[in-house]
Amino acid sequence: MKSLDEARVAIVGLGLMGGSMAGALQGKCRAVHGIARRQETIVLARERGFIDQGSLDLADGLRDADIVILSTPVRTIIRLLKEIGPFLTPGCLVMDLGSTKAEITAQMDQLPQTVHPVGGHPMCGKEVAGLEAAEARLFVGRPFVICPLPRTGSDSLTLAHDVVEAVGARPIEIDPERHDRLVAQVSHLPYLIASALVTHTDAVASVDPLVWQLASSGFRDTSRLAACDVTMMLDILVTNRRAVASALEAYGEQLRSAAQLIASEDEAGLQRLLDGVSQRRKDLFE
Amino acid sequence: MKSLDEARVAIVGLGLMGGSMAGALQGKCRAVHGIARRQETIVLARERGFIDQGSLDLADGLRDADIVILSTPVRTIIRLLKEIGPFLTPGCLVMDLGSTKAEITAQMDQLPQTVHPVGGHPMCGKEVAGLEAAEARLFVGRPFVICPLPRTGSDSLTLAHDVVEAVGARPIEIDPERHDRLVAQVSHLPYLIASALVTHTDAVASVDPLVWQLASSGFRDTSRLAACDVTMMLDILVTNRRAVASALEAYGEQLRSAAQLIASEDEAGLQRLLDGVSQRRKDLFE
Repeated sequence: MKSLDEARVAIVGLGLMGGSMAGALQGKCRAVHGIARRQETIVLARERGFIDQGSLDLADGLRDADIVILSTPVRTIIRLLKEIGPFLTPGCLVMDLGSTKAEITAQMDQLPQTVHPVGGHPMCGKEVAGLEAAEARLFVGRPFVICPLPRTGSDSLTLAHDVVEAVGARPIEIDPERHDRLVAQVSHLPYLIASALVTHTDAVASVDPLVWQLASSGFRDTSRLAACDVTMMLDILVTNRRAVASALEAYGEQLRSAAQLIASEDEAGLQRLLDGVSQRRKDLFE
Repeated sequence: MKSLDEARVAIVGLGLMGGSMAGALQGKCRAVHGIARRQETIVLARERGFIDQGSLDLADGLRDADIVILSTPVRTIIRLLKEIGPFLTPGCLVMDLGSTKAEITAQMDQLPQTVHPVGGHPMCGKEVAGLEAAEARLFVGRPFVICPLPRTGSDSLTLAHDVVEAVGARPIEIDPERHDRLVAQVSHLPYLIASALVTHTDAVASVDPLVWQLASSGFRDTSRLAACDVTMMLDILVTNRRAVASALEAYGEQLRSAAQLIASEDEAGLQRLLDGVSQRRKDLFE
């Protein structure tokens, strides 16, 4: 297996994540080949110095690649995994940047035994999608989950770690089911919370439109994730349905507990709850 | 009634809001007198050029004031309203910056008939409290709710508008009950949503502490309001209990609708919902 600095890297999908990954790997590997659906994406990625070469054709783009990184919405990754087998160079590493891991790594396991799949998920993002928002420093200092498959050998795992560290991220090795359960809590749930806040306020506005004028910075931040790319989020929710449903259920319990303290006028209990929350939030982010 | 530029303004409470208001009124009135509980607050407010004079004593601070602005947590405002009657100059305007308005304006109505009360609520803030975070430009371009009482005359109402416009804010006149109902949706509910996300994730972390390492910028923004000042928020929730309870109930319905679409695998319905949300959020803030 070639080392990262000798490797030809092919990145399928040049959106926010794939474009940023391409940019971050410049100078760290032999060449970066970008594969996109539209010629203008290839042109922009070359202009921004993110890729050395671009293709609209999958077979052409994957030819001679030592490392393949799939960077599209989750269900497109799954579909690509069903198609790319015949185009892969024996011995190559196949990674992805998808936001759920169980279904993807299950599909990865169907790849020819001559190639080496490892799941990946960088824990960073923006609510704006697309190559325009990409930046080579997106991953710096961020956690980057690596999900080895049972068949993943130590050489491929080491190379996956090298890729993660080359873009400045902190690798965290974790199994796919545990990953999906945890990101359901801190990523998919917050998206649904933000979305429900928007639908709720929209319903209020249908009775009293003045409500939008009173929405301030607190509302803006709490609802920010609601602007996320729908195609990406839909794939995430559909491929992580059970963990998301269970997170929603447990979160609803926490909301009902707070509502109960307010309704029963248990001010001491409410204060204890909010003091704890405020302290925890400060410990985490200050 | 004196015009703003001739008025002596007394501000009770020099935290984020009171300190910012003092700074914003500098040069717009005859003098700003700050009243605080601690000498070091007075010293800092003078150093920052926010006040011309400071007092630890309420009677002393309110003497000869033409405009009094109460800027403390809501229940302290209510307590102050019960005490300040004897210290007020006949003819003075009494405003407040409290985040709920029905209980405050009800208490304002008990003030001597010789003074002129009007409720106020600037729609801006930060999750950090205190004079250190205050800034004279905090209100610029922000909505500023004015709640007239039935007894509020047109001269006092005009002067209240002058105060709001002098600090660069946009006055919105609205009755106290409608104000409280609407801010329950876009301000108090988001705070509880953020807090419940923190308690939920804390509960998950007690089983799998790795969850905190996967919390990214989306989690940070959705939970930001959970770091708000607890004393302030507790007063808000307690004095707006019914509207908050009803907002929580309606919001819970929206969450359950989304959960239902996910559980029933109604992907077309889920996509319709999320497309609408994403579009609405973009229309609002971009």
